Amino acid sequence: MSKLVIVGTVAFDAIETPFGKTDKILGGAATFIGLAASQFKLDASIVSVVGGDFPQEYLNLLSNKNIDISGVEIVKDGKTFFWSGRYHNDMNSRDTLVTELNVLADFNPVVPKEYKDAEVVMLGNLHPMVQMGVLDQMSSKPKMVILDTMNFWMDNALEDLHKVIKRTDVITINDEEARQLTGEYSLVVAARKIHEMGPKYVVIKKGEHGALLFHDDNVFYAPALPLEEVFDPTGAGDTFAGGFAGFIARSGDMSFENMKNAVIYGSTLASFCVEKFGTERMLNLKGDEVRKRLQQFKNLTQFEIELT
Amino acid sequence: MSKLVIVGTVAFDAIETPFGKTDKILGGAATFIGLAASQFKLDASIVSVVGGDFPQEYLNLLSNKNIDISGVEIVKDGKTFFWSGRYHNDMNSRDTLVTELNVLADFNPVVPKEYKDAEVVMLGNLHPMVQMGVLDQMSSKPKMVILDTMNFWMDNALEDLHKVIKRTDVITINDEEARQLTGEYSLVVAARKIHEMGPKYVVIKKGEHGALLFHDDNVFYAPALPLEEVFDPTGAGDTFAGGFAGFIARSGDMSFENMKNAVIYGSTLASFCVEKFGTERMLNLKGDEVRKRLQQFKNLTQFEIELT
Repeated sequence: MSKLVIVGTVAFDAIETPFGKTDKILGGAATFIGLAASQFKLDASIVSVVGGDFPQEYLNLLSNKNIDISGVEIVKDGKTFFWSGRYHNDMNSRDTLVTELNVLADFNPVVPKEYKDAEVVMLGNLHPMVQMGVLDQMSSKPKMVILDTMNFWMDNALEDLHKVIKRTDVITINDEEARQLTGEYSLVVAARKIHEMGPKYVVIKKGEHGALLFHDDNVFYAPALPLEEVFDPTGAGDTFAGGFAGFIARSGDMSFENMKNAVIYGSTLASFCVEKFGTERMLNLKGDEVRKRLQQFKNLTQFEIELT
Repeated sequence: MSKLVIVGTVAFDAIETPFGKTDKILGGAATFIGLAASQFKLDASIVSVVGGDFPQEYLNLLSNKNIDISGVEIVKDGKTFFWSGRYHNDMNSRDTLVTELNVLADFNPVVPKEYKDAEVVMLGNLHPMVQMGVLDQMSSKPKMVILDTMNFWMDNALEDLHKVIKRTDVITINDEEARQLTGEYSLVVAARKIHEMGPKYVVIKKGEHGALLFHDDNVFYAPALPLEEVFDPTGAGDTFAGGFAGFIARSGDMSFENMKNAVIYGSTLASFCVEKFGTERMLNLKGDEVRKRLQQFKNLTQFEIELT
């Protein structure tokens, strides 16, 4: 089976939306990426760190999904990374209420020995030097390195970020971040500038407005599924990235045509993620539901104009 | 050939964008709708009004596109409707600088006799009572009535607007207007509420984020083509509506499947409209260019996931 290495946070989240609020629940980029990737038959391993306060029960939830957690370091006398945020009424913007780095502050990722030859590496949102540390441990050059990042690292570690971007095949980034990284308003022009920084493929996530995949002069667009209500957007971007990475790793096909399918899978899985608080929906997601929703995506986007 | 009646403004526009500004140039909802519809083999007639200051040359531009202008009243001692606006840097928002109704203030639309049995009626943005006046003149019930409107009429003539919406098969409206009309943030819920007001089909235009077509529980999504630069958005919504109406009128097929194609044609034509100031691009648009861009829309949206 193909191997996928995922690095990112495994965390506590506390979330407020117009629909309600949670206590500290399971969250983190690597958690959402891993749960999305677990929809595909492959060997996935999470590289992360948690504190002694992290419930074994949460780790079991991941390993029960056949996610290898031998690369999740447990710092017994440390506390787990904690994020808390409040979403506005439009669900498109949020305020961060609390960010406690805790054990993340001194995190040195260790890739498990049997994953050093993984075909696909998914670098979830973390300090670019930590992302780089994972790449440096790979024994052979991965077929595909996928990078997710955010504006925080552009503000605080831009030079390091550029170094890791240079070693990346696919970058996933949201529209505002693409604009910030390039100083270009047009996403077409921004994508071209990001190509020049290294990545052959640029995925620009636009939240409820879908996602664009750029490769040279080719563009592919996947809408978000129009939903009656978005309950909690937390983790949607990571779920998208995990679906993308998982599909690519499973199929082993790195062509642009196949990457279109990966984007559709990512959008499909993200459309489930937002239906419940935190990881709840992804933990209980069945393959049948995914297939049904893929059909909805087909109905949503496919048409039959004959060109003469 | 199928007949299409178009009611809307024929106007002077003066436009400022970050790329430059124009003097008074040819504009108006019916103008853009007519130019888009003229891409299809059909008999289209514009019902509108202009003043004595309106150049014969502009009218010739329309009749040279085989658009019937016998329903465009010329008020010799009146002045043509004038609109002026300035776009912000993001091109998604604009300030209206001038609105002079002029001859539009007392406009009584007259549908030419030979168009009273038209299969399709496109009610461009105008006072709902004027739109209603056109419907009342039809000798037989049109196969399809398409309505475009805007927030101005929701603020100032809501009761009349509801009357004309009730007699409409397809409404095209932008996302903010759909929210204003229904008081619902979710576009899925908003579309359902608009269905209940009358229209079987609801098209929600999201500008650079594309357009959604709703019919009962079915949804179809057409993206906007990602462009390097949007030069002037004026008329894009009307061009979309004109492409939609023209395609439907020409094909005579009112099925949901065919309406998907109509939405794609509308998006395709709108993607040209924004490339130059005012009507310039639409006046010089060739069929070959349209076919080529339709292929781009296919490449942009079509994928090959096999569902098992």
